[in-house]
Amino acid sequence: MNKEETRKLIISKLKKLGEELNRKIEAEQSPSITMPTRTLSNAYFDPKDRLIKLGDKTQTRNFFNVGQSKKFMQTSLVAAEIKKLLEQKQPSLSTRQLYYILKHSIEGTKENTFDDQATESDPVIEDIEVTIDALRENLGLEATPSGVISGELIYDDLKTGDTINCSKMGSAGAAIPPNTEPSSIKFKTCKAKYILVVEKFAVWNLLNQSKFWKKNNCILMTGKGQASRSDRRLVARLNKEFKIPVYVFADMDPYGYYIYSVYKQGSINLAFFSEKAGCPDAKYIGLKVDDIKKFGIKKSNFIKLNDLDLKRIKEIRNYDWFKGKEWQKELKALKDFGYKVESDALVSKSIQFTAEEYLPKLIKAKDFLP
Amino acid sequence: MNKEETRKLIISKLKKLGEELNRKIEAEQSPSITMPTRTLSNAYFDPKDRLIKLGDKTQTRNFFNVGQSKKFMQTSLVAAEIKKLLEQKQPSLSTRQLYYILKHSIEGTKENTFDDQATESDPVIEDIEVTIDALRENLGLEATPSGVISGELIYDDLKTGDTINCSKMGSAGAAIPPNTEPSSIKFKTCKAKYILVVEKFAVWNLLNQSKFWKKNNCILMTGKGQASRSDRRLVARLNKEFKIPVYVFADMDPYGYYIYSVYKQGSINLAFFSEKAGCPDAKYIGLKVDDIKKFGIKKSNFIKLNDLDLKRIKEIRNYDWFKGKEWQKELKALKDFGYKVESDALVSKSIQFTAEEYLPKLIKAKDFLP
Repeated sequence: MNKEETRKLIISKLKKLGEELNRKIEAEQSPSITMPTRTLSNAYFDPKDRLIKLGDKTQTRNFFNVGQSKKFMQTSLVAAEIKKLLEQKQPSLSTRQLYYILKHSIEGTKENTFDDQATESDPVIEDIEVTIDALRENLGLEATPSGVISGELIYDDLKTGDTINCSKMGSAGAAIPPNTEPSSIKFKTCKAKYILVVEKFAVWNLLNQSKFWKKNNCILMTGKGQASRSDRRLVARLNKEFKIPVYVFADMDPYGYYIYSVYKQGSINLAFFSEKAGCPDAKYIGLKVDDIKKFGIKKSNFIKLNDLDLKRIKEIRNYDWFKGKEWQKELKALKDFGYKVESDALVSKSIQFTAEEYLPKLIKAKDFLP
Repeated sequence: MNKEETRKLIISKLKKLGEELNRKIEAEQSPSITMPTRTLSNAYFDPKDRLIKLGDKTQTRNFFNVGQSKKFMQTSLVAAEIKKLLEQKQPSLSTRQLYYILKHSIEGTKENTFDDQATESDPVIEDIEVTIDALRENLGLEATPSGVISGELIYDDLKTGDTINCSKMGSAGAAIPPNTEPSSIKFKTCKAKYILVVEKFAVWNLLNQSKFWKKNNCILMTGKGQASRSDRRLVARLNKEFKIPVYVFADMDPYGYYIYSVYKQGSINLAFFSEKAGCPDAKYIGLKVDDIKKFGIKKSNFIKLNDLDLKRIKEIRNYDWFKGKEWQKELKALKDFGYKVESDALVSKSIQFTAEEYLPKLIKAKDFLP
């Protein structure tokens, strides 16, 4: 769907929501909005699709209910403002900017529409996303992106009319835009055979300098740690639209594993987004405990697991999406090994080791964790 | 100086450092290295150049001194490794990767060369920077960049051979590369009349979507909060080489002021870098306390100053580079006003207010803080 069609579709969905309320008011019924519940207890891991999803519990917000009327008012305000901004074809905003637009004292009272962004307006925005089944980027609300990308990918930026060739972006790579939805970014060509997602910028930088993406015909991306929304959607879209596999190169520690899992099946707190941004077939190509011996990683590169690491390992072992036997085995092996190893440490083998030996060997042998 | 000349110059400086040590050993003297002291007490604000600088105190590290011999060994190791990597024309690394390369047990002992990056190898890298008067980027050590830039600027990326046109980078803008030294980035053309540095990505995004840089013939940059090294050097180089002014659009709070001051005169803990990355003529174009009334910013956009804010205001008032009467007046006014206002909040006036009224008015009237 193109930009204009998306805009019109969202407006019509929001309009329908408002008309529904009007109808109830005219019929002298209590106006109410029913929407999927976004509580953690309504998020679950779907073992068939291998994605974190939102369950089918719903909640209703009634205007004539003391406990619900403020939230009802806030939901109506946010929906109406988003509709107005889309109708006016305004530029996209951050959720903080929307909060500032909507925050004011209610006439004749000392009551504010909103007093806090994180606990009031942001949750309402997420409510509207799930109610009308649309990502916030399509509602004109964008988050700060963090990632960069290089490789044989060309896309049209529908917002500006520019064509971006990710193989000609120099030592910086192409910045990932704040909105990577099909209504904003249209892929033209992608010659890559796979996507290598690198946790850390320093590792990406090393691979980019040696033109790893060119020699290995891949797309080389980093989210600089935990990826932002548009980074994840970009990877998921490339994975889906070009049917190319995703390999995630993260640290051998519970944080690296978790970053990998977010690219793969998403996260519980953003379950609705995870359904659309996950890559259920992604593989982990970071170090495994077995690799330490196999590749002769020296002890001076080990970092002792601390209490926080051990606690995190325990937590991760209990996540449904880490319940497969390979990951259970790996998590136990890490705990028994007692040390974590960062992906940066591979340079101590040799500066070319990551690009010329480690990654090609593992990819050729399909030596991944699922 | 081009890439190759820079590389050779650094190698020759490091070689000279080693030869000096050799000479002392052959003359049966204690080998020692003398370098500028990087302690906070040796950093100062130079009111003439209006930059934070490193003073002229020096320190000497002797091999035959129990308290200095480990640091001496570490300094020699880092210098030798950097020289080797440059001679081999290796890709640039992060300081963490260099740490991993150098960390090992000393033969026949249980002693490690390095046990910690932040307190051991990073300070030694900074020592070498000041000793041979070269930024670490030219030593082949790059940091993670954070910023993006758009506008009528074209540069050659000397590392990859690509030409980057910052006016054709779509809604993402051009990612700022990890190395923006003249040996890595060569400016071709810059048609802009000034550089607008925006603290927050959301504000940059709004201005970029309305092509503010095109309508106002400027360069539009954000460091996404506190800027990284290469972001700052890029701004400083544009400022110097094209003789165009720098306006910093930050929040009306002590953190925004401080971010501005780092672009302008640098910071105490990186005094050596600050001399090369500062823009002493930069101006603050964020909200001033007077503007609140002038532009009718509504009270719902104010955020009460908390204890931390008040403490930070007090600290900033005592910094030498905030001692000018305009800033002293402004800091007092903020404290008396009792509220901070974020740059994001301007959207509540209207979405176009920042781009079409606030910024053009202030720039036309030269209504800045120094």
